[in-house]
Amino acid sequence: MDGMTVAGTLAERMGITISEASPHRVVGSMPVEGNTQPYGLLHGGASCVLAETLGSIGAALHAAARDGAIAVGIDINANHVRGVTKGTVTGTARPIHVGRSTHVWEIRIEDEHQRLICIARLTVAIVPRQVIAPPA
Amino acid sequence: MDGMTVAGTLAERMGITISEASPHRVVGSMPVEGNTQPYGLLHGGASCVLAETLGSIGAALHAAARDGAIAVGIDINANHVRGVTKGTVTGTARPIHVGRSTHVWEIRIEDEHQRLICIARLTVAIVPRQVIAPPA
Amino acid sequence: MDGMTVAGTLAERMGITISEASPHRVVGSMPVEGNTQPYGLLHGGASCVLAETLGSIGAALHAAARDGAIAVGIDINANHVRGVTKGTVTGTARPIHVGRSTHVWEIRIEDEHQRLICIARLTVAIVPRQVIAPPA
Amino acid sequence: MDGMTVAGTLAERMGITISEASPHRVVGSMPVEGNTQPYGLLHGGASCVLAETLGSIGAALHAAARDGAIAVGIDINANHVRGVTKGTVTGTARPIHVGRSTHVWEIRIEDEHQRLICIARLTVAIVPRQVIAPPA
Repeated sequence: MDGMTVAGTLAERMGITISEASPHRVVGSMPVEGNTQPYGLLHGGASCVLAETLGSIGAALHAAARDGAIAVGIDINANHVRGVTKGTVTGTARPIHVGRSTHVWEIRIEDEHQRLICIARLTVAIVPRQVIAPPA
Repeated sequence: MDGMTVAGTLAERMGITISEASPHRVVGSMPVEGNTQPYGLLHGGASCVLAETLGSIGAALHAAARDGAIAVGIDINANHVRGVTKGTVTGTARPIHVGRSTHVWEIRIEDEHQRLICIARLTVAIVPRQVIAPPA
Repeated sequence: MDGMTVAGTLAERMGITISEASPHRVVGSMPVEGNTQPYGLLHGGASCVLAETLGSIGAALHAAARDGAIAVGIDINANHVRGVTKGTVTGTARPIHVGRSTHVWEIRIEDEHQRLICIARLTVAIVPRQVIAPPA
Repeated sequence: MDGMTVAGTLAERMGITISEASPHRVVGSMPVEGNTQPYGLLHGGASCVLAETLGSIGAALHAAARDGAIAVGIDINANHVRGVTKGTVTGTARPIHVGRSTHVWEIRIEDEHQRLICIARLTVAIVPRQVIAPPA
């Protein structure tokens, strides 16, 4: 999935790396350093970026099997359950629902001690490639 | 609010700037460029970072009035309603509920033509400063 | 909108009545009594039923203008910001985003003193009538 | 947990029954009939009522261990992934995060064929009993 973290993207800027990507599971990591809020904790929005990146890659792998379809995030929700100040966090995305026009993916983000940092759910629309924008 | 976009934070890395910050309204902007996903659209997670940054600043302004209290994000949700490929987006956070122990802030993000890009709601816990982590 | 609160539906069982319904605004009320949880407070799920009922009616009014289309809820989120133990609560739904294939509606529920009880956001899919199920 | 479905509550009115309740897992069911929207599908809000009922019971079992504490729902989100028109649906709530002041519970609702109908996440505040209202 090198193509999903291409130069100039936010994922690349934040140091997100993808270690596993299949239609059933997508795993990726990012450093805490550089992705913090003013108190020195991992920024909650950083967790959202990681979650949305992983879920979108998973949905895209399904969509790619349908000629010309792409995956676009409709909405996301995330609970931040533990602060983390250093090291690396790793997210794992798994499909909850894989439908014809929408997907739901769940993403769990853990610290280096396998403690839950964030749990998120991403709703994705599967749309024809020519619609390069959220469903409107 | 210069102190809220200090060097080394994610907000600084993404080019987020705060133009207005009061307990009643917080406004900030960021460029689309550099904050995109692989299709060239603004990354949905970038909208979450902007939303959570603005809402947290607003909540922090309330918390600061109570000796030693800080604001920590508990959870966030966001609907991505329109793709944007260039220019700057601007978010405005307003308090929906300001309670003793929790806040709810709503954040609307618009493009340069005042078209809605994203709407988000952030739930924040107000905790004593010594608890420098999400409520546990 | 009598047809939306037909006999045998959950809305009818809970005493939900619709006082206004246009593509721009849908308003409805329900009693607290009978819709409570064990502590005697309005059940948070009751607010979700009211929110989803109002937003769905609004989306359906748009969908009806397109031959054979119906509106189906994809997901909902709700913040419960104030408890209420008696009287009537009133919800107002307004469209945040009206797209070709999805809608986003925001619903605010207030008590008899215009104090906010709950704020919710509903994401709706607009699908052909023959698909009488969530998008799959 | 008979005390959680006492007469006059919404859960009782909707026919919700609890079959298992421990701090680690809460299971309950409800009929589709009587809990539908106008198209004859299970009302999305009904799923929210079941989810919030189960998660709240689980959180209350934890809170009860702390003298005088009760559990109050702060916010909920739910994805409706499949329509159901008859029979019974069963929800299972499991704790995602059990903290000092907040809990996060995940609830999955399935039909009689173990197909996922809805997935929800409930954020709960643990507050002293005298605060019989959402955190304010």
